[in-house]
Amino acid sequence: MPTSRLETFSDGVFAIAATLLILDVQATGSPLAHELLRIWPSYLAYAISFLTIGIIWVNHHTVMGQVGRVDRTYLFLTVGFLMAVAFLPFPTRLVAEHLRGTGAKAAALAYGITMTTTAVFFQGVWFYAAIGRRLLREDADRRVVAGISRSYIPGPFLYLGATLIALASPTVSVILFGAIALFYVLESSLFARGQG
Amino acid sequence: MPTSRLETFSDGVFAIAATLLILDVQATGSPLAHELLRIWPSYLAYAISFLTIGIIWVNHHTVMGQVGRVDRTYLFLTVGFLMAVAFLPFPTRLVAEHLRGTGAKAAALAYGITMTTTAVFFQGVWFYAAIGRRLLREDADRRVVAGISRSYIPGPFLYLGATLIALASPTVSVILFGAIALFYVLESSLFARGQG
Amino acid sequence: MPTSRLETFSDGVFAIAATLLILDVQATGSPLAHELLRIWPSYLAYAISFLTIGIIWVNHHTVMGQVGRVDRTYLFLTVGFLMAVAFLPFPTRLVAEHLRGTGAKAAALAYGITMTTTAVFFQGVWFYAAIGRRLLREDADRRVVAGISRSYIPGPFLYLGATLIALASPTVSVILFGAIALFYVLESSLFARGQG
Amino acid sequence: MPTSRLETFSDGVFAIAATLLILDVQATGSPLAHELLRIWPSYLAYAISFLTIGIIWVNHHTVMGQVGRVDRTYLFLTVGFLMAVAFLPFPTRLVAEHLRGTGAKAAALAYGITMTTTAVFFQGVWFYAAIGRRLLREDADRRVVAGISRSYIPGPFLYLGATLIALASPTVSVILFGAIALFYVLESSLFARGQG
Repeated sequence: MPTSRLETFSDGVFAIAATLLILDVQATGSPLAHELLRIWPSYLAYAISFLTIGIIWVNHHTVMGQVGRVDRTYLFLTVGFLMAVAFLPFPTRLVAEHLRGTGAKAAALAYGITMTTTAVFFQGVWFYAAIGRRLLREDADRRVVAGISRSYIPGPFLYLGATLIALASPTVSVILFGAIALFYVLESSLFARGQG
Repeated sequence: MPTSRLETFSDGVFAIAATLLILDVQATGSPLAHELLRIWPSYLAYAISFLTIGIIWVNHHTVMGQVGRVDRTYLFLTVGFLMAVAFLPFPTRLVAEHLRGTGAKAAALAYGITMTTTAVFFQGVWFYAAIGRRLLREDADRRVVAGISRSYIPGPFLYLGATLIALASPTVSVILFGAIALFYVLESSLFARGQG
Repeated sequence: MPTSRLETFSDGVFAIAATLLILDVQATGSPLAHELLRIWPSYLAYAISFLTIGIIWVNHHTVMGQVGRVDRTYLFLTVGFLMAVAFLPFPTRLVAEHLRGTGAKAAALAYGITMTTTAVFFQGVWFYAAIGRRLLREDADRRVVAGISRSYIPGPFLYLGATLIALASPTVSVILFGAIALFYVLESSLFARGQG
Repeated sequence: MPTSRLETFSDGVFAIAATLLILDVQATGSPLAHELLRIWPSYLAYAISFLTIGIIWVNHHTVMGQVGRVDRTYLFLTVGFLMAVAFLPFPTRLVAEHLRGTGAKAAALAYGITMTTTAVFFQGVWFYAAIGRRLLREDADRRVVAGISRSYIPGPFLYLGATLIALASPTVSVILFGAIALFYVLESSLFARGQG
């Protein structure tokens, strides 16, 4: 079973989930100029979420580059993973709308739980393929595989930590979600350098 | 006529229909924390529907792996099939909004009729290709083809049964929709094992 | 310049435009069972529009099968064509909402003007490629090319006619839009038989 | 690392961002016929934005035709670029709703800032690949590369200029956004002729 259709479907979900985020940016108040300044948390939530989905996509790209074939269990793990990714526009809207109100804690928790779930599923997708090199390509590079494994292990813990902090301070929590995204962009670059 | 564009278009509709489901998850009440707990039927409906579309996609993947060429009748059957798949976000929203209200019966019926129609169309797509091996690849495996045929025959009847039960109890009906989805995930695994 | 990316982009727009149509199906009244029966024009509009986009996609598929390369003028003609296709969810919603009200005439006219524009653009896309065999494949079949040309010429006139009838009777006009869609499904089958 | 998945993801975002624009065309007033005439700025905004995204897509197509491989920095630059493209439906809605009201200036500024950001990111994507021929194909045509570089340099300045004019007259600003789009369609044709 080739990997190409899995990639088309996944890329479709990534692209749509990322693009739907813009529907969560709404300016309904008046006058418009003030309203556009007032809704800055919307822009922040859009940017962090889009970047986060972008990072997940780039990493999924890297994973699929090492995967040579798929089986039905792997397909269903991917469906679960994409279900978590496609859920992201909902907590993103919550954060954008409630970050400065009484619902800030609930919104940040919803966002964090979604991201933690996504990270757990991504681990599942990767380790199902990688353990015993079950689905890896014949010529998958041992160092790249080890690098991916190493960089994916902290993911759920980082997100779980940032999520729990929302109980004390939703704002710090959201800043940490941004920081984790940034960390993964930079980490990816370091990681890529290691590949060269 | 190659099958690749049909797959791109189908994967697009699957990916969008699945991702649009998140627009049906809405939290408008207050306070937010209570509201996020109160709308649990939304999450259930999202998960069942996403998983269901994911299963249909995995199965379509399996079917297309056996199909070697397409004709215009097959293309239009697929368009009808996708029309039913893309309709799913509407009854999903109904179930999410009305499962605990007076509209529960109507919502479960709408969901069930959509799923039954989808299953009928999927049968049409498959048997049009498979009968007399009209559109199958030269080297399509006789056992896989028989396995798909066998596993697709009960589909419409399972969904029709669960739909009719909504007349007596919408809640039982929705639980059955979840169970059918779960059955197809497991059945697929069994089936895949048979392939090995 | 290869044709594959043009196909990916076009298939994306077709798939999204078709799938977005479901957002125009809304049930807000009460009780739900009555509401679901009352909004039957929504289902009709969804089905006609989805089928229409499906037909356009199938025909675009046939056209691209004869096109061997693209130039930038062709790309922009395609962008204009897709702009008309992606506009369709808007008049579809109008027809669904207003078919039985005072806005029926305006809604049917909006739908008809969109379809006529789409048909004109599709002619432009085809004849730009076909005249003098400018962009056709070396081995494009003379009879298929003539068949496409012949079947595309009446398109804009059929839609313009059905649009003008909306001035007298919006309902007849919408029935004709359905009939044209049906005609193109059947005509395509006849046409495909000619190909065999 | 092949370029194909990057193209699938990018084409998905382009296709969705373009198609979502139709959600910004809304007719809620009464009577419908008057309303459909009254909302002409919606159509204009839809057409300009769809055409603009179409042009960016065509140009991205041209760029990717010269790019032979991608690295992770390039992927993240593309994610940033797509983040700006996918933002466009929001300021498009603002322009459509506010062009004749008191929010015209803010709306035109929002649109212009988005387009300027998009143009800056597109430059970043291109020059990162082109400088020192870092990611270009071995056989990338020297004249085509120089042509792309030349035609991309003015982009951010043209958009920045049109944006600043919004401070004096939002209407003139919007006309200029249309003119820039038209210029790039024509320029592309000239440019393509140079390629022949």
